Amino acid sequence: MNDTPTTTRQIVLASRPHGDPAEENFRLEEAELPALEDGQVLVRTTVMSVDPYMRGRMNDAKSYVPPFQIDEPLDGGAVGEVVDSRADDLPVGTMVTHQLGWREHAVVDADQALPVDTADVGDSAYLGVLGMPGLTAYTGLFHIGQFTEGDTVFVSGAAGAVGSLVGQMAKLAGAGRVIGSAGSPEKLERLHELGFDAGINYKDGNLAEQLREAAPDGIDLYFDNVGGDHLEAAIGALNTHGRVTLCGAISQYNATEPPPGPRNMFQAIGKCLTLRGFVMTEYAHLRAEFLQRVQPWLAHGQLDWDVTERTGLENAPAAFGELFTGGNTGKMVVRL
Amino acid sequence: MNDTPTTTRQIVLASRPHGDPAEENFRLEEAELPALEDGQVLVRTTVMSVDPYMRGRMNDAKSYVPPFQIDEPLDGGAVGEVVDSRADDLPVGTMVTHQLGWREHAVVDADQALPVDTADVGDSAYLGVLGMPGLTAYTGLFHIGQFTEGDTVFVSGAAGAVGSLVGQMAKLAGAGRVIGSAGSPEKLERLHELGFDAGINYKDGNLAEQLREAAPDGIDLYFDNVGGDHLEAAIGALNTHGRVTLCGAISQYNATEPPPGPRNMFQAIGKCLTLRGFVMTEYAHLRAEFLQRVQPWLAHGQLDWDVTERTGLENAPAAFGELFTGGNTGKMVVRL
Repeated sequence: MNDTPTTTRQIVLASRPHGDPAEENFRLEEAELPALEDGQVLVRTTVMSVDPYMRGRMNDAKSYVPPFQIDEPLDGGAVGEVVDSRADDLPVGTMVTHQLGWREHAVVDADQALPVDTADVGDSAYLGVLGMPGLTAYTGLFHIGQFTEGDTVFVSGAAGAVGSLVGQMAKLAGAGRVIGSAGSPEKLERLHELGFDAGINYKDGNLAEQLREAAPDGIDLYFDNVGGDHLEAAIGALNTHGRVTLCGAISQYNATEPPPGPRNMFQAIGKCLTLRGFVMTEYAHLRAEFLQRVQPWLAHGQLDWDVTERTGLENAPAAFGELFTGGNTGKMVVRL
Repeated sequence: MNDTPTTTRQIVLASRPHGDPAEENFRLEEAELPALEDGQVLVRTTVMSVDPYMRGRMNDAKSYVPPFQIDEPLDGGAVGEVVDSRADDLPVGTMVTHQLGWREHAVVDADQALPVDTADVGDSAYLGVLGMPGLTAYTGLFHIGQFTEGDTVFVSGAAGAVGSLVGQMAKLAGAGRVIGSAGSPEKLERLHELGFDAGINYKDGNLAEQLREAAPDGIDLYFDNVGGDHLEAAIGALNTHGRVTLCGAISQYNATEPPPGPRNMFQAIGKCLTLRGFVMTEYAHLRAEFLQRVQPWLAHGQLDWDVTERTGLENAPAAFGELFTGGNTGKMVVRL
């Protein structure tokens, strides 16, 4: 197969960011592709994911996923087409999701590539509503947060990939009231379109007061995507037996000094609160249950999702950086 | 019955403390006792409890128990002898626990008085190991904290009424290692006698480092009686799937400004931690299960408990104040 590429462009970690990630922390380079072995496929990636959690992997710190290595390519969720195959069940032309993003072509073990049907929803849906963010929203809301019909739900980062799905899923499952926070009037308008009952612009300050106005009877479940002062405001607003799903802390990923913690943790005693953190890698087994619940919502047009798309591998680092400055509505992806 | 008293001495709340409770916040006064009605008993209290949670009730704030009222008597756990009775099942001479402490005599509804056998363990045991602190330790360790055999357990306020029982119960139930924090060498020595594997003097500073040394393989369960910097150190030391029982925040009850919160809450995500607060009033139904588990330990001399006793109703406010300055080892009570 003479047309099969033998090299790929890829993004490597040039240096570890200190604080905000900068262009100089990344380098675009050309790399040799290894020859396919039995049970492997060559994938031409059409769209790749940039996710906030990747910031943690850029530090040299022990975590639930190993850190990226200097001068080694980054990786992450991606969707692409099989262009060469030594795996019988993944013939050339199959669309698959895989974990070797941040490069245009990748040699992938067949058991690390999941065939997907992109005809109806497009490839990027598998990085968003039907991918990791969708499963994260589902797991965090129903399993970790123990959502109960009638709950008043507050979700931060509500215009983001996970947050926008949390709010919509809560409404679809019978929430009494859903409140989202975001960082611009445009995003709040989008939350309104998505069916949120109220929105808070965290850049307007005094989160606690805004939350009290948006949820005069308090909240029952807080889905935390940002950490910091949002968590403190939520603890203050939570009702007895309230629950907090600790999913992300995007406000803190680039912090160079420890950010202040919630000063009202003692309220968790008197209010009998439960706060629970989770990482998606432990809940992959929920995927079938998740699809069963979510696909009908999608099929009936009840669940909407946004994608913010940038183009070109060379622009992937900048797209990643935009995650921390509010550049995305919904899922941020890079089309290659 | 001419000997039956018609008045009692009692402690009323003279003013609400701002910060540390002071003598001037309390007043000793004489009050009329109402005549007994059917289904009531007159109790001469022999020993009464002072508890950290009472500090919260001295504020005029909404909480899980209503605030004390100015010029009204305080109340709380107590043990005493029935000296007059209009309840068939509580004849004169019966020893009972009741909730109208802070006074020498009290008229108690029979359904609010629980007969107890003080012959073997003494009356104050029902304010400690067999009372609210015992049930709190049991509930917080096994139900809230989901203790698992082999766990490394860290408990703060470990020389206190609840903490000393938590550590011993954990050892009896098969903990791998139990670490306690306290505020003096004498208390640490007492923890050693009680079977704790290691002790930390929080007054020596750098809790995180001390905890790392005491638990080089991390901790699995943290039982929080104090809040503040202990919680931050514990979050840093917790292993994946670690649990935190949020039981008390004695370091913060007298705070006049919001104390700093744990700056490392984001670690709860990657480590999949669960933090859960609780109040004992919701778990009274566990009393039978608790006694079934604890009484054999007591009968076999496997569970030890300390009582710090002060004497005289007039000294109850000072005894209460000592709870916040480390004056007690084990349960603080006042003998009347």
